[in-house]
Amino acid sequence: MASSPTTPSSMFPRFLSFAYGVLIFSSFCHCRRLQDSLKGLTLDSVRDFLTREEDTIVFSLIERAKYPYNSPTYDPSYLHGKFSLVEIFVRETQAVQAKAGRYQNPEEIPFFPNNLPLSTLAPPYKFPQVLYPAAASVNVTKTIWTMYFNDLLSLFTTRGNDGNYALTAASDLVCLQALSRRIHYGRFVAEAKYRDAPQDYNPAIRAQDKDALMKLLTSESQEELVKRRVKKKAMVFGQDITLDENDTGDSNSNRTNYKVDPSIAYHLYGDWVIPLTKLVEVEYLLHRLD
Amino acid sequence: MASSPTTPSSMFPRFLSFAYGVLIFSSFCHCRRLQDSLKGLTLDSVRDFLTREEDTIVFSLIERAKYPYNSPTYDPSYLHGKFSLVEIFVRETQAVQAKAGRYQNPEEIPFFPNNLPLSTLAPPYKFPQVLYPAAASVNVTKTIWTMYFNDLLSLFTTRGNDGNYALTAASDLVCLQALSRRIHYGRFVAEAKYRDAPQDYNPAIRAQDKDALMKLLTSESQEELVKRRVKKKAMVFGQDITLDENDTGDSNSNRTNYKVDPSIAYHLYGDWVIPLTKLVEVEYLLHRLD
Repeated sequence: MASSPTTPSSMFPRFLSFAYGVLIFSSFCHCRRLQDSLKGLTLDSVRDFLTREEDTIVFSLIERAKYPYNSPTYDPSYLHGKFSLVEIFVRETQAVQAKAGRYQNPEEIPFFPNNLPLSTLAPPYKFPQVLYPAAASVNVTKTIWTMYFNDLLSLFTTRGNDGNYALTAASDLVCLQALSRRIHYGRFVAEAKYRDAPQDYNPAIRAQDKDALMKLLTSESQEELVKRRVKKKAMVFGQDITLDENDTGDSNSNRTNYKVDPSIAYHLYGDWVIPLTKLVEVEYLLHRLD
Repeated sequence: MASSPTTPSSMFPRFLSFAYGVLIFSSFCHCRRLQDSLKGLTLDSVRDFLTREEDTIVFSLIERAKYPYNSPTYDPSYLHGKFSLVEIFVRETQAVQAKAGRYQNPEEIPFFPNNLPLSTLAPPYKFPQVLYPAAASVNVTKTIWTMYFNDLLSLFTTRGNDGNYALTAASDLVCLQALSRRIHYGRFVAEAKYRDAPQDYNPAIRAQDKDALMKLLTSESQEELVKRRVKKKAMVFGQDITLDENDTGDSNSNRTNYKVDPSIAYHLYGDWVIPLTKLVEVEYLLHRLD
């Protein structure tokens, strides 16, 4: 029976009513999928991921510091002025990794996303879709790239040139990918925090209030703890290990020449890694109710 | 003036005499170059390289152990049965690295040397030619590849599949390259040892006596020291670092779950890395007087 022209439902043409129903149903399905995926995403699992990633970042810096700065790796004049060796190296290596399926995992974001090949080599695998789709595309790779090459690199490498440009570029890529994975994991951190207490975040999200969100996401004491732990990791992992029975990896020892200055690891986290992760968290949350 | 038919030099036709002169001159030049290069190659510098490479190998194992075994990475049936993902990944990544000049450095040897592109991206650099040319081509990459995938990998990874096949293959490649660099550095070790005391090695080389060379190159006490140090590195680098003041990275602590079982690092060195390095040393020395 056609709805009466006098009822409120008559304000809805039929196709809109149908579309609305599909929308509600699809949102319901999405929420179910999100709920299922989120069983694996907790504040504890997020903290474990970030803590383990600290080791990866410190290892990657120590491995890059095996080689001196090696400036020809970064000088476009060797390749007719357009691109540096490291940029071509990163583009081509990421293309190989894309074919092998690296960017099927939503934790991974390429530095140069244009014209990446399809993941034709990757055996099928269904990664859990944990992120809120409208917020998932937050991307600060350009900032990470600039920070790494313009600010960080010269702080923890020695001056000089040993000709190992390919090994240098490969080590740079490992550092960049580790930093990017950690910083963009801010999306997962924000999702876990939001799910834990949506009522705390909803007003600031609705008001699109970045400062209020940043305040909610900031814990200075927790950040200080992370910075001190990363510094300690640089001390423990970057020391020369000997079989001296008294040398048990004591990070308070003054005898050791560390392979990467531990205070640089501390400042890397304080000045860039933690602020950029929080920037990603804020940008993610701003779209969490879209 | 033509030499008299009665002098011994008449036994030498002129062109042979000339060729012999060129040969002596060229050998003299080669020796000079070798001597110059060898100023940087000492028993101490070789020992430092090997010790630092232990850190790289332990880091690489810990990083691979982040991911479970991930069997589809190694199963050719996903790619029509000929190659596994990891083999294609290694071939294509090494091609990118070859273009960037990785294999210009004589310390680096590719796993798949056929059809590698030229180093068209690499800024020019003249690596010191330290190795004796007739002996430099010793290559055990096939043995390392088989050992890594057939014997080692399942010992230090957990069972399971998390879909990170590209990250898995990239981590495998870092492990393989670190192991290969260490093992093939046996050529430099042998050169340094030979230069330090050629008279000790010449009789066994002339007799092509592998057993005698192996005996000359073996120091069980030194090998035990290396194995114990690598085990300690796996303990120190693979522990969970906390800010507990009493936790100073003490490798004697029983509280830690190490990311790679330290006894596996010990046996990796004892069963494969040290024996294969010595095999490379012996094969190198067998050609040291060619």
